[in-house]
Amino acid sequence: MIPNHVMKELSTKNDAKIVLLVMDGVGGLPIDGKTELETANTPNLDNLAAQSSCGLTNPISPGITPGSGPAHLSLFGYDPLGYEIGRGVLEALGLGIDLGDNDLAARANFASMDAQGRITDRRAGRIPTEMNLEICQLLRQNITKIEDVEVKIQSGMEHRFVVVFTGEGLSGPLSESDPQQVGLEPLEIKPLVEGAKKAARIVNQFVQQVKSVLQDKQPANMCLMRGLAKSPNIPSMHELFKLTPAAIATYPMYNGLAKLVGMEILSTGSELSDQVETMRKNWDNNDFFFVHVKKTDSYGEDGNFAAKVKKIEETDAILPDILALNPDVVVVTSDHSTPAVLKNHSWHPNPFMIHSKYCLNDQALAFNEHQCMRGCLGTIPAYEAIPLMLANAFKLKKFGA
Amino acid sequence: MIPNHVMKELSTKNDAKIVLLVMDGVGGLPIDGKTELETANTPNLDNLAAQSSCGLTNPISPGITPGSGPAHLSLFGYDPLGYEIGRGVLEALGLGIDLGDNDLAARANFASMDAQGRITDRRAGRIPTEMNLEICQLLRQNITKIEDVEVKIQSGMEHRFVVVFTGEGLSGPLSESDPQQVGLEPLEIKPLVEGAKKAARIVNQFVQQVKSVLQDKQPANMCLMRGLAKSPNIPSMHELFKLTPAAIATYPMYNGLAKLVGMEILSTGSELSDQVETMRKNWDNNDFFFVHVKKTDSYGEDGNFAAKVKKIEETDAILPDILALNPDVVVVTSDHSTPAVLKNHSWHPNPFMIHSKYCLNDQALAFNEHQCMRGCLGTIPAYEAIPLMLANAFKLKKFGA
Repeated sequence: MIPNHVMKELSTKNDAKIVLLVMDGVGGLPIDGKTELETANTPNLDNLAAQSSCGLTNPISPGITPGSGPAHLSLFGYDPLGYEIGRGVLEALGLGIDLGDNDLAARANFASMDAQGRITDRRAGRIPTEMNLEICQLLRQNITKIEDVEVKIQSGMEHRFVVVFTGEGLSGPLSESDPQQVGLEPLEIKPLVEGAKKAARIVNQFVQQVKSVLQDKQPANMCLMRGLAKSPNIPSMHELFKLTPAAIATYPMYNGLAKLVGMEILSTGSELSDQVETMRKNWDNNDFFFVHVKKTDSYGEDGNFAAKVKKIEETDAILPDILALNPDVVVVTSDHSTPAVLKNHSWHPNPFMIHSKYCLNDQALAFNEHQCMRGCLGTIPAYEAIPLMLANAFKLKKFGA
Repeated sequence: MIPNHVMKELSTKNDAKIVLLVMDGVGGLPIDGKTELETANTPNLDNLAAQSSCGLTNPISPGITPGSGPAHLSLFGYDPLGYEIGRGVLEALGLGIDLGDNDLAARANFASMDAQGRITDRRAGRIPTEMNLEICQLLRQNITKIEDVEVKIQSGMEHRFVVVFTGEGLSGPLSESDPQQVGLEPLEIKPLVEGAKKAARIVNQFVQQVKSVLQDKQPANMCLMRGLAKSPNIPSMHELFKLTPAAIATYPMYNGLAKLVGMEILSTGSELSDQVETMRKNWDNNDFFFVHVKKTDSYGEDGNFAAKVKKIEETDAILPDILALNPDVVVVTSDHSTPAVLKNHSWHPNPFMIHSKYCLNDQALAFNEHQCMRGCLGTIPAYEAIPLMLANAFKLKKFGA
C-alpha cells in the first residue's frame, strides 16, 4: 500500500464531500441460490451500482476473517496489520469509554474459584447482567486507586466487564491471567517487556483485591484479566488525508473505532433516517461521512437471513435521501461479510461500489456479490478504498513529475 | 512485486522480440457514453485484442494519479515507489540533457525581485522564450565554474530553465529557494543531509552570481531553484531482465526516461510511420522496442476529445506495419490515463493487451476500457507487465524446482 508519508504529501484539502456507507457484514452466501443482497429488492442500490465502479474488497487478505477493529481500520485507509487494537481497548470502546494516553484497558470476566484457588468456571456460570451490575458497584466502592493508579470498572453483559487503569508509566504488553481451562489457578500477569513491569504489578494487585472483595460472592468470586492494552497510536485521517471526517453510528464500538482515527462523533438517533438527518444537519461541517448500519451484521450473526434481507431493503430505501445531499463521492460496502448461513464474520470479500461524476461504470449492474465480481475494480484490499475515494473527490495531487 | 535479484536470476537471453507500444494517456472517460478508445474506429487494435490476454493496469496503486516519470518506470518493470526521479532530473531529460553520475540538476525559474530583495513575481511575468534564450546566453558567458564545479545552463519555455552542476561530491537532497509566495525573500538552499553541504554551498553561490549578473534585467532579475536532484541509480533493464532494449520516442523526456533504465535511444522522425521504420531498421539489433506515441496524451491534456480519437485511429492504422515485423510479443497500453474530459493525467487504470503465440485469449473483444475490464488479466499493477512480456517471449526460467 501507499506509505503514510506519501499519502500525507499527496492529499490536499478541498470542499468535495465523501460519503462512506458501511452496511456492516452485508456480504453473504446463498440460500436457494441467492445471497442476502441478491434476495433483497434494492432498486436504488442497483441503480447506483450501474453508474459506479464496482468490485470486491478484502479487509486484510484473501482467506482472513477480520474482527470489526481491523476491518474498519482497513476501510479507513490504514494497514490493518500495522496497528493492533487490543481486545481490552475494543471492549472499552464498545462500552463507550474514552481512552487517553495514560489509560490501560482490560477485558475482564467474572469467574468461579474453588477453596484451593482453582478456577471451576471461567465465566462464573454466565451470571445475569443484573448481578454483574451489582458486583461491579461493590468493586467500585472498594477499589478506586492502586498506588498512584486510578481504577475504573464498568459492567458489560453477563460475566463481562472492563477495567481501565489510569496513571503514569503504564504500558503493555502483558500476559493474561486466564488459564484457558478449568481446574487450574489463575495465572500471574507478567510484563512481556521491561517497560511493562509497573502495569503488571498494578494489575496483579487489582486481581488480589477483587479476590478479597468477592470472597463470599460465589459463583462470581474471582476475575480473569485478558487483552490488557493501551490505545494504539494511529495518525488521524486529518493528518494523513487532510479530511475532516465524521462518524454517524448507532453502536458505541464503531464510534470508538472512528475516534481512534480522529473522526468527529456525531450523536444521532437509532434509526437510519436519524443518521441521514444527522448527516444533513452537519453537511457543511465535514467533508467525509462514515455512516454505519449495524443490524445487517447482527442479523447475519443471528443466522436470520430474512431479517438481514429486510434490513438491506430498509437501507436501500434510505439511499435516495443520501444521494439528495449531492455528495461528490459515494461508496457503499461492508467492513467484512457475515453470511447468515455461517452466523459469523467470514473471509468472503465485500461487495464494493464507488460513484462519482468521474468513475468509470462497468458491467456490474446491481449491488451484490456476483455482480460486483464483474466490476472494473477487481478484487482489491479494502485499504485501497480511501485513495480511490480521495482521487474521485480530486483530493489527491499527482505522484511524481 | 518480484524482487530485483529474483528477476536477475530468472531472466534469460534469447532472440525473441518484444514490442511495447505505449499510447501515452490513451485511457479516457466517456462523452455521450463512449470513451476516446470506444469512439475511435480501431479495427486492427480490436482484432489484436480478440487474440490477446487483456486487462487493466494501475501504474502505482488504485486512486493514485502518476506523473510521466513513475508511470513509465512502472511500465518498464520497476517499483515506482522505490526510485525517485527529481523534478530537476525530469526537466533536464525533457530538454534532452544527458545526466552523468557527477551531475546535479535543478529546475529553475526566472523571477522578479524588488529593491529590498523580496520576490514580486515568481515567474518573472512569464517572459517570452526569446528573452529567456537571451538571458541564459548572458548567464553562460558569466558563469561557467563555481569552485571546481562546472555549470551548464539551458533555456526552457518562458521563465523556465535548467541548470546542471557537474563535479565531485555533489549530492542531494537539498531544500529549494522558492519561497512559494511573493513578498518574501528567496530562501537559502540548505543541505538536508550532511553529505549535501557542498552542493548547497555551490548552488547558493550560483544564485548570488545570477543576482549580480541580472541586476538590471527586470523583470527577470533573479532566479528560484527547485527540484535539485541527481539521476536516480536505477539498475538497467539489461542487468535485471537481460534485454537489449531500444526506445523510439519523439519527445526528449521519454527518451530521457528510457535512458535512465539503460535503453538505447534510436533517433527517429516525428511521424508514427518514421517510428515504425526506425524499428524495422533496428530489428536485428535489439530484442525490446519501446515505441512511444505522445499526442494521445497531449490532446487529452488539451481536452481535445476528437483529436485524441483521431490520433488513436492513426495509431491503429500503423499497427499492421508493426505486426508485419512478426514480433514474438506485442503489448499495447498507456502509461497513465489522460481523459479529455479531465484535461489532465488521472488515476483510472490503463487498458492493456498482450499478444503472443501462447497468450490465452479472453472475453475482451476490442481494445478499450470496458472490454479490457472483461480480460483475463484483471486489474494488475503496471510493473507486472514486464514479467508477462518476458514470459510470453520465453525469456524467464522456472522459479524454484
